[in-house]
Amino acid sequence: MSSKIIIGVMGPGENATPDENIMAFDLGKAIAKEGWITLTGGRSFGIMDAALKGAVEGGGLTIGVLPGDTEKGSSDHAQIKIVTSMGSGRNYISVLSSHVTVVLGMAAGTASEVALALKSKKKVILLNQDEITIRFFKNMGSYNVLVSKDVPETIKHIKEFVGMNKLA
Amino acid sequence: MSSKIIIGVMGPGENATPDENIMAFDLGKAIAKEGWITLTGGRSFGIMDAALKGAVEGGGLTIGVLPGDTEKGSSDHAQIKIVTSMGSGRNYISVLSSHVTVVLGMAAGTASEVALALKSKKKVILLNQDEITIRFFKNMGSYNVLVSKDVPETIKHIKEFVGMNKLA
Amino acid sequence: MSSKIIIGVMGPGENATPDENIMAFDLGKAIAKEGWITLTGGRSFGIMDAALKGAVEGGGLTIGVLPGDTEKGSSDHAQIKIVTSMGSGRNYISVLSSHVTVVLGMAAGTASEVALALKSKKKVILLNQDEITIRFFKNMGSYNVLVSKDVPETIKHIKEFVGMNKLA
Amino acid sequence: MSSKIIIGVMGPGENATPDENIMAFDLGKAIAKEGWITLTGGRSFGIMDAALKGAVEGGGLTIGVLPGDTEKGSSDHAQIKIVTSMGSGRNYISVLSSHVTVVLGMAAGTASEVALALKSKKKVILLNQDEITIRFFKNMGSYNVLVSKDVPETIKHIKEFVGMNKLA
Repeated sequence: MSSKIIIGVMGPGENATPDENIMAFDLGKAIAKEGWITLTGGRSFGIMDAALKGAVEGGGLTIGVLPGDTEKGSSDHAQIKIVTSMGSGRNYISVLSSHVTVVLGMAAGTASEVALALKSKKKVILLNQDEITIRFFKNMGSYNVLVSKDVPETIKHIKEFVGMNKLA
Repeated sequence: MSSKIIIGVMGPGENATPDENIMAFDLGKAIAKEGWITLTGGRSFGIMDAALKGAVEGGGLTIGVLPGDTEKGSSDHAQIKIVTSMGSGRNYISVLSSHVTVVLGMAAGTASEVALALKSKKKVILLNQDEITIRFFKNMGSYNVLVSKDVPETIKHIKEFVGMNKLA
Repeated sequence: MSSKIIIGVMGPGENATPDENIMAFDLGKAIAKEGWITLTGGRSFGIMDAALKGAVEGGGLTIGVLPGDTEKGSSDHAQIKIVTSMGSGRNYISVLSSHVTVVLGMAAGTASEVALALKSKKKVILLNQDEITIRFFKNMGSYNVLVSKDVPETIKHIKEFVGMNKLA
Repeated sequence: MSSKIIIGVMGPGENATPDENIMAFDLGKAIAKEGWITLTGGRSFGIMDAALKGAVEGGGLTIGVLPGDTEKGSSDHAQIKIVTSMGSGRNYISVLSSHVTVVLGMAAGTASEVALALKSKKKVILLNQDEITIRFFKNMGSYNVLVSKDVPETIKHIKEFVGMNKLA
């Protein structure tokens, strides 16, 4: 039985903009349509929640990697809840468990996820990021970083990465 | 969308007996038949591997919570691989993420999982354990510990626990 | 510059008996007199607090490996605070960082520390434990487990372990 | 007994430049002269090793927060070894345990430490960083970020932060 492909969607919680949340929803839905699992930090707001909600709507399976030591505060759309009791320490587990990580919006926790992914030679897609963010992260792992403007381009990039790694 | 029910199956790796491995296989298969997810420590031998293999054979979904920082060494039967980079530190995540933990065979890592589960008021079923083990753990969390002799009794106990917590 | 020797003292929090707390205080003081560092789970009550208090009174250095993501709730006697944000997940770090772990009193968290220490082939001294506890843990790591009745015997055993490993 | 002040020094391992290693040594030495503890990721090369070596030479106490599950690979200058078995997951513990984190040189692991520190509202000093790095991190936590050009300015900034928090 082959392993399932997991796509991480990382981005801000409280500080995500309405437009970013809509894009996260669309991304989760598009990931689900490809038959991949959507994984996020699992909380009930922001990019974490929106991507999981989109994935469920798209008929996909979802994983929330939760910060607390119970399921409390989880997104209603996290079907599989990994309970870590590690707060932001779970960020490393989130990116290690994702075959590709897509980053949408930016905040300190999100930046830690990109950095930890690159540290571990994992593939990252910077979706809709500004020039400073792109230059900062390109400097530290250019072969593993791709840049995209919208959801369709992101899905195309994920397919390149998945193909490269023979993950399918 | 309701959360999926996850049953952890914990037990020794290299030191599991052939009989324990057979029982773990049967248990994974029975868990799958109930529609529950089987979660283990995800390595490619012992109870971890046998329970996942049984669950896949029973048509169920499986999660391996892996010790390393890559998927290397994973059981072929772990469909969803949670990559922790925590070694035995992942034991806490395994039990926190399991709605009920079943323990089969005994070794130091397994004992840590029972203890961490009880510390967190999680439900534990001691399957086919000796008198010392039962008395040791009953002393530290009697309401959350049930004892079973075989797979059917274990499934019955899981249903009691799942019902008590309205997890379904 | 040689590495400092760290002795972990593990035991219950709220449920420690007054006699156990007195013994933990005496043990911390005796560890300090030997020039060793005392490490505990760092909270402000029970064995964790009492051992650190004794160690400070004995003129020793102390480490608290804390559960939260800030120093809040720390024992006043933890001079060096390691802030883990891992709850009981820190138990693994506590025993891995201790050259020898002494266990005094028993509860679920404490049992997880003994088990994780033995899983990692670390040295453990069971101080003033009952017969079931001793038999349970002896079964899973007899060469790394010693039993003691009081503080002087514990210090003698620590010296044996420290000598064996040429830690000094 | 008051808590000791811990200053984290974070930076690249293999990819640190000779000039950065010299600056890390000088910084460790200057931290020690102030009576503060120096904490790093504890490995035997790069900024981690150089800062600890300087701190020991300055008569200070040192902590290495190690990635493996044993002391193997530790800097010889880490007097207190915190053994985490978490790989880069330990980065969160390193910054949470540091009252102020100084960042010198830049790589993916280092970037994750800055980001995790800012996520947790911890104080960070960017030492000798380029314009992109400064702008990237200033955007996500300006009140908690200070910039310095050399070791004396860094020590001055640490004192401001320590005073602000009444850590002393």
